Amino acid sequence: MNTRMIGYILGKMLGVEALLLLVPAFVGALYDEREGIAFLIPSAILLLFFLMVGLRKPEKTKIYEKEGLIIVASAWILWSLFGALPFTISGEIPNYADALFETISGFTTTGSSILPDVEALSQCMLFWRSFTHWVGGMGVLVFVLVLTSLDKNSSMYLMTAEVPGPEKEKLVPKMVSTARILYGIYLGMTLVQTILLLCGGMNLFDSLLHAFGTAGTGGFSNYGASVGHFDSAYIDGVITIFMILFGINFSLFYMLLLREFKTVWKNEEVRAYVFIIAASTAAITWNISAQFGNPLKAFRYAVFQVASVITTTGYATADFVQWPMFSQCILLILMVIGACASSTGGGIKVSRVLIVLKSIKREIKQMKHPKSVSIIRVNGKKMNTEVVKKVSVYLMAYAAILIGSVLLVSVDNMDFATTFSSVLTTLNNIGPGIAKVGPTGNFSEFSVFSKLVFCFDMLAGRLEIFPVLMLIAVPVWRKRF
Amino acid sequence: MNTRMIGYILGKMLGVEALLLLVPAFVGALYDEREGIAFLIPSAILLLFFLMVGLRKPEKTKIYEKEGLIIVASAWILWSLFGALPFTISGEIPNYADALFETISGFTTTGSSILPDVEALSQCMLFWRSFTHWVGGMGVLVFVLVLTSLDKNSSMYLMTAEVPGPEKEKLVPKMVSTARILYGIYLGMTLVQTILLLCGGMNLFDSLLHAFGTAGTGGFSNYGASVGHFDSAYIDGVITIFMILFGINFSLFYMLLLREFKTVWKNEEVRAYVFIIAASTAAITWNISAQFGNPLKAFRYAVFQVASVITTTGYATADFVQWPMFSQCILLILMVIGACASSTGGGIKVSRVLIVLKSIKREIKQMKHPKSVSIIRVNGKKMNTEVVKKVSVYLMAYAAILIGSVLLVSVDNMDFATTFSSVLTTLNNIGPGIAKVGPTGNFSEFSVFSKLVFCFDMLAGRLEIFPVLMLIAVPVWRKRF
Repeated sequence: MNTRMIGYILGKMLGVEALLLLVPAFVGALYDEREGIAFLIPSAILLLFFLMVGLRKPEKTKIYEKEGLIIVASAWILWSLFGALPFTISGEIPNYADALFETISGFTTTGSSILPDVEALSQCMLFWRSFTHWVGGMGVLVFVLVLTSLDKNSSMYLMTAEVPGPEKEKLVPKMVSTARILYGIYLGMTLVQTILLLCGGMNLFDSLLHAFGTAGTGGFSNYGASVGHFDSAYIDGVITIFMILFGINFSLFYMLLLREFKTVWKNEEVRAYVFIIAASTAAITWNISAQFGNPLKAFRYAVFQVASVITTTGYATADFVQWPMFSQCILLILMVIGACASSTGGGIKVSRVLIVLKSIKREIKQMKHPKSVSIIRVNGKKMNTEVVKKVSVYLMAYAAILIGSVLLVSVDNMDFATTFSSVLTTLNNIGPGIAKVGPTGNFSEFSVFSKLVFCFDMLAGRLEIFPVLMLIAVPVWRKRF
Repeated sequence: MNTRMIGYILGKMLGVEALLLLVPAFVGALYDEREGIAFLIPSAILLLFFLMVGLRKPEKTKIYEKEGLIIVASAWILWSLFGALPFTISGEIPNYADALFETISGFTTTGSSILPDVEALSQCMLFWRSFTHWVGGMGVLVFVLVLTSLDKNSSMYLMTAEVPGPEKEKLVPKMVSTARILYGIYLGMTLVQTILLLCGGMNLFDSLLHAFGTAGTGGFSNYGASVGHFDSAYIDGVITIFMILFGINFSLFYMLLLREFKTVWKNEEVRAYVFIIAASTAAITWNISAQFGNPLKAFRYAVFQVASVITTTGYATADFVQWPMFSQCILLILMVIGACASSTGGGIKVSRVLIVLKSIKREIKQMKHPKSVSIIRVNGKKMNTEVVKKVSVYLMAYAAILIGSVLLVSVDNMDFATTFSSVLTTLNNIGPGIAKVGPTGNFSEFSVFSKLVFCFDMLAGRLEIFPVLMLIAVPVWRKRF
């Protein structure tokens, strides 16, 4: 294990966070808020760490998948540990466990909150809270990938852990430059959304914060009623469209830039994604029409909630806990499915669901025609058995964590819908669940122990499970291998 | 497709049911109940079918896996369709959909009921209801395997579909004689349990019915309060022990007869099964001690409910819906795990869970040591990749059916705990769930559509999913292959 290189990269990443913390400090200065000072203390500590380990590049720079996974997992945890400090130092979230939950929820772009009254926070804290979404969105590592210059082999392994979804091969060749392009697209789309929101009459602060939450598919809002606060069909529409866009595989935007329209059009995952959104919206619109009085209004709220949940953003314009159980169940299923691979969204990803359905279909086909050899194809390309195997093991680990977490959280003795959906929503990085953790609820009633379980789930979900499992397994298993 | 042979075997199997229906008719005669006549009508119809297609053996007797799966799935459906008739003819369950639900619940050894007041049924109907558990327990096919004489190749394929669990290779060689031995063990254990229950002061009728329900891991009781009716620590104890025994892989009892104690002792699945029971009982005992006043009483109720749920029997001595959510969640998890492979129990089976956990462990190990090749072993034997693949696809299909069913049932707009646990309990062939379908509840409030979904889930769960999926897929897919 190349511990020196791990330390070096982590040091650099902590340096980046030191810089990022200056942004909300600046916002605090703009609004003349004393709380802004709370950002300078962790920033100074992080700078110190950076100067200590992040400056001198070790001689041996080569790292492997194992180190890559450990770096990624540690980076998210360290960023969250330091990112939570301003909340507690300023006294706005006095309990550090709560602040940590909120920060991890931010960086992992989950959007679950322990705040019963979000509007009580100062402007600079609200900014930092939403800014973590935006930073978390494209991943801590993409930053570092652009900012540092590792040799190509090493950055490939980092990318393996970072970019969500089963198919990251495509991005491997020109890693660093590709990362820059993806990041450019991300920045560009955030800007366009901010401008469109401004046109809708939102002020700059609100526009920026909601664009941050959309881009990272996070879902923190600076209003208790979330996007429902604005009560504007135009704003609902803009955010709906951008949520859906940010849930699409980013490499497809890259393809669009390269004018490869045919590739994009024929992409099976996007087609399935659009189909699922359309079908769910139709079903929910039909189901809630009576409640909303007319189908058009029902459609507006249905499509927003569907887009919000499948992309794992978690904004809300309606309290879907009041909807019929059928609609709630559709939303719960969308929570599990999640967005496309290589997007900022969470969940198990549409492409994995496709591979699962194709595996089942193949199995039935093979039972009927035992001699036939059938192959799983996605986008016309043969999926090798290694990918299919990885997907199954991933899903099994996902199920194991889901079940284990439900058990641990059940000690708090909440009702079943709250217990189950709170785990589902954090593991899939969505934000709200149903019952007590629904769109108008929050996570404040849970015990500190449960909050830590949720922190683990949010990290595991964001990092696609295995890096986090490996980090836990390291000290325990070291003796045995 | 050898349709003539399919017809011939199905004809024979319907003949067997014609005979079985005479048993409750006889019970009706003993108790001087007019309702007994209701069994003679379907019996006569079935006899007619048998005479028409079940007598003449076709020249070509060879059948393959595909035919085997279709026969098994059709047999369960036909048996249930005819087995439900007496309930409706006698007017005791006037709605045929309800009667079908009750009968499928019986044959699949689920034990879920639509009866709000079970004690209102006549003795002969109660007998038939529990008898379906016992018959279903070892599977319709084992009957037919013993009664008919197919050539060895054919019976092997039938067995593949019938015996639950991932490892059925062991049983293949001397199929027919092995089936006879297993069936002998089943009969013997049922007798021993009946006698032990008689010693506890139960009458013969109650003893027989509760032994039927235990042997088939079904759970129908002729009392509304289930086994809680007797309120006897001795009876609770006997039934607890026999539930656990009937949840063990039957080939291990065979091994015991052959005095291969070491093989049994070292069996990983049984060890895991015993460990899960012990750990769950300990956790629940701790969790409910306060509620029951003393740990000993808590233990008695905890171990009964744990054994009942993990073996998917579904008897109850306490209303666990009143227990803390932690205990309820443990029981929900046990519902999913289920009993050992090749037992009469349902669920996804302990051995599959073992394979899942080992796959995850191997994946983590391989990430840490990419060059190592690690193999999954169960009972010291290498699992070939085909088994591991089949287990994953099985679990994916299981999850897909679970999610799909929850969505369909949610249209009835019950609360989430009821909706989710009703699907879980039927798909795993357990009986009670939590909330409205808890131990003191029943399925009568659901719509006919939901009841049919549950029927499908019970059959899919009992037949390990793929035969049922294939039956559905046949007409749809025929054109395409």
